[in-house]
Amino acid sequence: YFWEAKGQTPLFPRIFGHEAGGIVETVGEGVTELQPGDHVLPIFTGECKECRHCKSSESNMCDLLRINTDRGVMIGDGKTRFFKNGQPIYHFLGTSTFSEYTVLHVGCVAKINPEAPLGKVCVLSCGISTGLGATLNVAKPTKGSTVAIFGLGAVGLAAAEGARMAGASRIIGIDLNPSRFNEAKKFGITECVNPKDHNKPIQEVLAEMTDGGVDRSVECTGNVNAMISAFECVHDGWGVAVLVGVPNKDDAFKTHPVNLLNGRTLK
Amino acid sequence: YFWEAKGQTPLFPRIFGHEAGGIVETVGEGVTELQPGDHVLPIFTGECKECRHCKSSESNMCDLLRINTDRGVMIGDGKTRFFKNGQPIYHFLGTSTFSEYTVLHVGCVAKINPEAPLGKVCVLSCGISTGLGATLNVAKPTKGSTVAIFGLGAVGLAAAEGARMAGASRIIGIDLNPSRFNEAKKFGITECVNPKDHNKPIQEVLAEMTDGGVDRSVECTGNVNAMISAFECVHDGWGVAVLVGVPNKDDAFKTHPVNLLNGRTLK
Repeated sequence: YFWEAKGQTPLFPRIFGHEAGGIVETVGEGVTELQPGDHVLPIFTGECKECRHCKSSESNMCDLLRINTDRGVMIGDGKTRFFKNGQPIYHFLGTSTFSEYTVLHVGCVAKINPEAPLGKVCVLSCGISTGLGATLNVAKPTKGSTVAIFGLGAVGLAAAEGARMAGASRIIGIDLNPSRFNEAKKFGITECVNPKDHNKPIQEVLAEMTDGGVDRSVECTGNVNAMISAFECVHDGWGVAVLVGVPNKDDAFKTHPVNLLNGRTLK
Repeated sequence: YFWEAKGQTPLFPRIFGHEAGGIVETVGEGVTELQPGDHVLPIFTGECKECRHCKSSESNMCDLLRINTDRGVMIGDGKTRFFKNGQPIYHFLGTSTFSEYTVLHVGCVAKINPEAPLGKVCVLSCGISTGLGATLNVAKPTKGSTVAIFGLGAVGLAAAEGARMAGASRIIGIDLNPSRFNEAKKFGITECVNPKDHNKPIQEVLAEMTDGGVDRSVECTGNVNAMISAFECVHDGWGVAVLVGVPNKDDAFKTHPVNLLNGRTLK
């Protein structure tokens, strides 16, 4: 997902992967928070716990360990920890989990209960927490509200689950792939819409379905046109749209400013 | 200000003006909230008190009486109340205050204390309430925060006053006209920046002045490029930008979606 976004200039060769569960094998000098045997999840948006972002309750964009798709080395010394035949292999998102062993900054791992099955809780290290968190902590739908979820992959389904937990009355899933619709209904989606089935912009379809627009929307595809639709489909006066998908480097989000003046919020 | 925005298709001839103070001369049939002699302010964003917007604490975009720069007639019967030599003269913003007498929907007037001097409190009917409200109710700067105000006209000065009331520690005013800077300092502006004095985008200048960006910004010019700068000058992680200016009909607000993914909010 991250490495597909266009416009990156990463170091190659590199080890991909950012979602996983694992057990600490060894710790580096000075690491006191963890010890060998601890069960952990890798976190690609780490926390140094000391910068203004980490100290702010409003941000998770740590100055030191924030997401960086281009960086291929450890932060401390700017060097890689992977080699093959003496040649460097670079890191990815500070996690590189498509590997039996990997090396992470201590701020990029979260200690978990060792009784949790690693093969299942691994999805908490990105997909679930990203989608669920975007809905519960950023979009904050109120009980009885209407929520649109763009993209019904793992992140979108987790976002839908967040809307269900918040007590939303209608959770509308939007996806170009109708084979996802049955599965989506298990995650709280109450109605499904395929933009291919309509001749008008999907934001207009949603506005008609919901008497003027949804109360909240969460964009989980990374497609910039879906982002624009996700913003324009929220109700004027109070609607809030949250962008979660990873855009390409050259993408431009574009909308008429009156959409904002009319009381919509974009996060 | 409103009538200068490009792309409107209003009815002409019309009586301009939307900011004023006045005394009720007569009331129409069924009006019980007001009586002749009441002192009132005209409100171009009226309240019917019955629609979903009026009942929502999050919106002031009344379905019936919201701002409409094109409409030139009374809402009840779709007719004008002004004539000259038998020819209709149209209304403007539901207020038409550049006139000794005018006719307004009862939802578009606010009764005020008759002791308030009409010649002074008239600015509460738009400029002050728009700027002050945008800062205090929408941007909501916290005590000690940094706020940028784009445009130092009446609305911008009121926005600055709001930031001062909220306890902002730095209130940076941005304007192309340096003759406004002295006056602005009386309204809480602590520093002034003229984009003409810099060779780089003003958002970069502000980021340098404030260690990464301001906590809040309020755009009060209506220029779409100022809107983009106002959004991009807020700090990642927690920054909030509020657009207050009236854009032209063909304007497009454009930014890289990563600016949102990095934790900025646009309202």
